[in-house]
Amino acid sequence: MKYWNKTLKEMDEYMPGEQPANIDEFIKLNTNENPFPPSDSVFKAINSSINGNLRRYPDAKASGVREIFASQNSLSPDNVFVGNGSDEIFTLIFRGFIEKEGLAAFPYPSYSLYDTLAQGNGIKYEKINLDSDLNLDMNRFLEKKYDLVIIANPNNPTGTYTDISHIKDFLNSYQGLLVVDEAYIDFYGGSAIGLIHEYDNVIVTRSFSKSYSLAGLRVGLAIAGKDIIRGLFKIKDSYNIDSLALAGAEAALLDTKYFNYSIRMLTSNKEYLEERLLDMGFIIVPSKANFLFVKHSTIDSKIIFGKLKENRILVRYFSGPIQSDYIRITIGTMMEIKKLCSVIDSILAEE
Amino acid sequence: MKYWNKTLKEMDEYMPGEQPANIDEFIKLNTNENPFPPSDSVFKAINSSINGNLRRYPDAKASGVREIFASQNSLSPDNVFVGNGSDEIFTLIFRGFIEKEGLAAFPYPSYSLYDTLAQGNGIKYEKINLDSDLNLDMNRFLEKKYDLVIIANPNNPTGTYTDISHIKDFLNSYQGLLVVDEAYIDFYGGSAIGLIHEYDNVIVTRSFSKSYSLAGLRVGLAIAGKDIIRGLFKIKDSYNIDSLALAGAEAALLDTKYFNYSIRMLTSNKEYLEERLLDMGFIIVPSKANFLFVKHSTIDSKIIFGKLKENRILVRYFSGPIQSDYIRITIGTMMEIKKLCSVIDSILAEE
Repeated sequence: MKYWNKTLKEMDEYMPGEQPANIDEFIKLNTNENPFPPSDSVFKAINSSINGNLRRYPDAKASGVREIFASQNSLSPDNVFVGNGSDEIFTLIFRGFIEKEGLAAFPYPSYSLYDTLAQGNGIKYEKINLDSDLNLDMNRFLEKKYDLVIIANPNNPTGTYTDISHIKDFLNSYQGLLVVDEAYIDFYGGSAIGLIHEYDNVIVTRSFSKSYSLAGLRVGLAIAGKDIIRGLFKIKDSYNIDSLALAGAEAALLDTKYFNYSIRMLTSNKEYLEERLLDMGFIIVPSKANFLFVKHSTIDSKIIFGKLKENRILVRYFSGPIQSDYIRITIGTMMEIKKLCSVIDSILAEE
Repeated sequence: MKYWNKTLKEMDEYMPGEQPANIDEFIKLNTNENPFPPSDSVFKAINSSINGNLRRYPDAKASGVREIFASQNSLSPDNVFVGNGSDEIFTLIFRGFIEKEGLAAFPYPSYSLYDTLAQGNGIKYEKINLDSDLNLDMNRFLEKKYDLVIIANPNNPTGTYTDISHIKDFLNSYQGLLVVDEAYIDFYGGSAIGLIHEYDNVIVTRSFSKSYSLAGLRVGLAIAGKDIIRGLFKIKDSYNIDSLALAGAEAALLDTKYFNYSIRMLTSNKEYLEERLLDMGFIIVPSKANFLFVKHSTIDSKIIFGKLKENRILVRYFSGPIQSDYIRITIGTMMEIKKLCSVIDSILAEE
């Protein structure tokens, strides 16, 4: 670590969900990927972009994606920024909108990448615990002067949702920047996007990884006031999204029919899984996302996690207070859910 | 700019070469894109990756690309990192390997993105002028204690090349980090990669944008000692390259036959252009890259640039000392070169 700077030395490494090499032998319900494929029109759009023009630089402004999303959401393209996944957007926010001596705050438990990225950009932060029912009390972020607050809504890994009215109340007393990470919002609705017209200190982020089944493409959005969007453009690397990802994202946005269909399918699978898990004695945190945060009334979550893995089913188990009581299960296909439930059945029978 | 931090407010915006909307009406010799399409095997590889697996996260370690490049260059994959273009790699180097109070140095004129990225990461830097013959004297970087030196080899926009022996001599007296940006090395050879075995403070970067005709895919490499590569992995966003770009880059590396063929074609076009320009009274800086840095013996470069643009031919004109005397012409197809020469002919006839 001879040439590593202080930031790099001191940061923790982010631990993404396991992606085993023999992935096809597993039922993979551990990283909130969508079980359904992307829209056929995404395939077509990418296909027709595979040509000699790949020798050229992509559109540095990602105009197509921004125009389509803006028109679908009654925004100006100047309110929309496209990132190499929402990960890149969080990094750019840390780099461009908070001074090194500033202080950030995130809920706990929440998406642990916020911690990693804050550390990787040398930004100090504090964690605000969720309530005992795993809901977020926004007032807790007013107890100190924070320069940046990031919340995930719905929250990951709990699936809990914070009402826009609570976010609004908070904004009426808050002076720093608020980022609302809406990676999972499409599974429920209730976006904070409308707030950007009223508050110039809100950035809403979106992801194509979950609801559009495009984790492989790395496309995320930031929606905010024009001044913030202009800042993101200024600080980003000149060409951050490749031509194929742009073409795919445009097509995904335009195929609203398939989008709605796949969300409906997922919701119905989720309802089925909820019912089965309740029957089997699980306690389920009310979830607005494409995953369930659950614990069994008698058997330890870590044991269930381990036994599922032995049976080649991956779910997510997080260490640390509160969350180590639970496992997080991504909603899969009906076949995957049935297999999961039958394995859980036999685990319960053994105990 | 209410929420912009000091870094964002104070940095200059990077000005990439013009990409006109009606691009197909222009002969575009201004951004060093390769005039030839990528290999057919790139198209095939991407094509066969357009499937339901796009719903899954890409390989965060980019193992395929790293293994292929390593084996082709007698390295370990642990010596290779894949970035979202080499731009991302420069940013990661600024973020992870230099303290905020550190000092960087770059040659002038060189790739101005180094300045932008240093500024965007709050790193101070100095510029070291090239010699009067536009060559780089590495000893100049020893006049002060620099923590980071970035050189482009061949240099952009001059096309000049610094011998490995000079880089080696420099490293024998230098304690900081040296980045050798080899975006254009494939057009000539003479890489610094071998130095990583001897010096743990060298990072060589590569790009797929130029010699592999894949500017649209955004893939770059860093080659360095294992400790530096491990640091880059630690500080990068978790999934920085999408699945399609990884598939395309792997195929591009493997098709060495097409690669060699397209380099040969480009070299022969370059020789033709050099000859024609000399005939027309241009002074050409000896170039080891896929572009020529030239000025006419009697007519001002800015005038030539403007008249070419009127004729829908884009070349690059940089303002600022030294470089404003020149224009930079990217090597195009033979048809583009012939058109360019005939337009220059008529410009000269007018004067």
